[in-house]
Amino acid sequence: MDTQNHLPSWQPGLARSHILAFLERVTTADSPEFVPPQQRIATFDNDGTLWLEKPNITELVFLKDLMRFDEKRTLPVGAGLRQRVKHWLHHIHDELIEDASLLFKEFREGISTDEYHSWVADWLDKARHPRFDKPYTELTYLPMREVLQLFAAHGFKNYLVSGGSCYFIRPWCEAAYGIPPEQVIGSKLITRLSDKSGGLEVEMAPVPWFFDNGPGKVLAIESQIARRPIAAFGNSSGDIQMLRWAGTSPTSLCVLIEHTDDEREYRYSPGDDTLAAAKSHGWTKVDMQRDWRQIFQPG
Amino acid sequence: MDTQNHLPSWQPGLARSHILAFLERVTTADSPEFVPPQQRIATFDNDGTLWLEKPNITELVFLKDLMRFDEKRTLPVGAGLRQRVKHWLHHIHDELIEDASLLFKEFREGISTDEYHSWVADWLDKARHPRFDKPYTELTYLPMREVLQLFAAHGFKNYLVSGGSCYFIRPWCEAAYGIPPEQVIGSKLITRLSDKSGGLEVEMAPVPWFFDNGPGKVLAIESQIARRPIAAFGNSSGDIQMLRWAGTSPTSLCVLIEHTDDEREYRYSPGDDTLAAAKSHGWTKVDMQRDWRQIFQPG
Repeated sequence: MDTQNHLPSWQPGLARSHILAFLERVTTADSPEFVPPQQRIATFDNDGTLWLEKPNITELVFLKDLMRFDEKRTLPVGAGLRQRVKHWLHHIHDELIEDASLLFKEFREGISTDEYHSWVADWLDKARHPRFDKPYTELTYLPMREVLQLFAAHGFKNYLVSGGSCYFIRPWCEAAYGIPPEQVIGSKLITRLSDKSGGLEVEMAPVPWFFDNGPGKVLAIESQIARRPIAAFGNSSGDIQMLRWAGTSPTSLCVLIEHTDDEREYRYSPGDDTLAAAKSHGWTKVDMQRDWRQIFQPG
Repeated sequence: MDTQNHLPSWQPGLARSHILAFLERVTTADSPEFVPPQQRIATFDNDGTLWLEKPNITELVFLKDLMRFDEKRTLPVGAGLRQRVKHWLHHIHDELIEDASLLFKEFREGISTDEYHSWVADWLDKARHPRFDKPYTELTYLPMREVLQLFAAHGFKNYLVSGGSCYFIRPWCEAAYGIPPEQVIGSKLITRLSDKSGGLEVEMAPVPWFFDNGPGKVLAIESQIARRPIAAFGNSSGDIQMLRWAGTSPTSLCVLIEHTDDEREYRYSPGDDTLAAAKSHGWTKVDMQRDWRQIFQPG
């Protein structure tokens, strides 16, 4: 493999070398560790691994905005809902509880997954990160997008495996990461089939159905892909089982992203349990401050 | 499209023409109904649509064999289980109930999905269909395998969407249909993560989690693929909603397979509700007796 030109925004060092050496081992035809293309599955956590998650997880910011109906920002909610909200606003006593109950009510009355997707897309068009003053989708990590591209170019199927909800990620992941919606695994609500408008629609119910975190990530990968990933990337305790599971493959790459750069991004620990797991299983650690030349796409 | 050589085991007729015309419409670059490759999703029911389901659904035959422990057939169960079974056999009063409870016990103690896959594969190696005296995997429908191949060759992602369990289908679907396990959607049990043997394993619990039939097929497709199929094939009332949902796409192909040939296969009705839905939605009907030159691979 001509590794000179790969991963240009990575500094030379152990992390970059591990990634490139792994790709070479599993994709070189006469390598003893060659893995056929259909078994080249890589899984990536999203928040803190592919894009930033501070000061707040982006999906929570979105949900707060949905509840808050901040008039200063054009809101990603359907006109019908906004009018109903204005009507309801007269009756509000405890703002937060009422806001939450409005959203709950909206879910109960039936939001289709298509509608929800358009709310998310509309919100992302307008929302900006408080510190970097950019759209959130421009705050994905450039070095990780290079990894996704390089893996895809080497026959890997990249899956995004997030504790966040798949409904929030699917509208934009293909444009941002080149990962199609069917390769997104996330937390889920109960859904139901609605037949009201002549055509069928899938509606979301305000009832959690599956929490895709920790052991849940392994169960969801097994349930959807039914193959063990041979590479996994994460940054927190919710990723420990996924990385351990990938590590049971005969040849594997398990990578922990560490947020070490409060100047260009944020500095925070992945937690003692995650560091202990990284140590005992020999995971590759990425030190953002040292290993990444660029964190975000410049400009 | 040179349609002469396509679908060789189909008789000329409406069904074959509909399929080929649909493919041409959605894959020809300057067609007004052109669909970009990433949206070319086709979903296929399994039992009765891709392979035979009479006199009994194959998965039920497998489960009965698992419970029955017929000594005349080498069984696909682990040695530990067989020994336990022999021990337990002394205590059996009501054979069927006890057998079922043994299987339940095995599930409760923990079967990993990997183990279960190997049981299924072992059983399929040995089991033979009572009438045709062939392995079940040789009783897939040749005309439908041609459809799967032709769709794949036209940039479609084919998904198998079965009321049966995904654990039963995934071990053999890639060899039989060219459909990889991650493109199988099926009924599911609760699973749990086991940490007992140093490596992690996913274990099945004897608790139904999701029944992939009727409206469930739409919910499962939305949950896993998050795109509407533009083509869907089914043969029974459990497929009505899936076909109706595919039919809401601007250009779609909805196909109902009718079992009309008791000489070469079986003759039975898809049910009045299914026939009514086919009529009111204008689905393409396949008359096995008339439309298929060959039903199974000869020899």
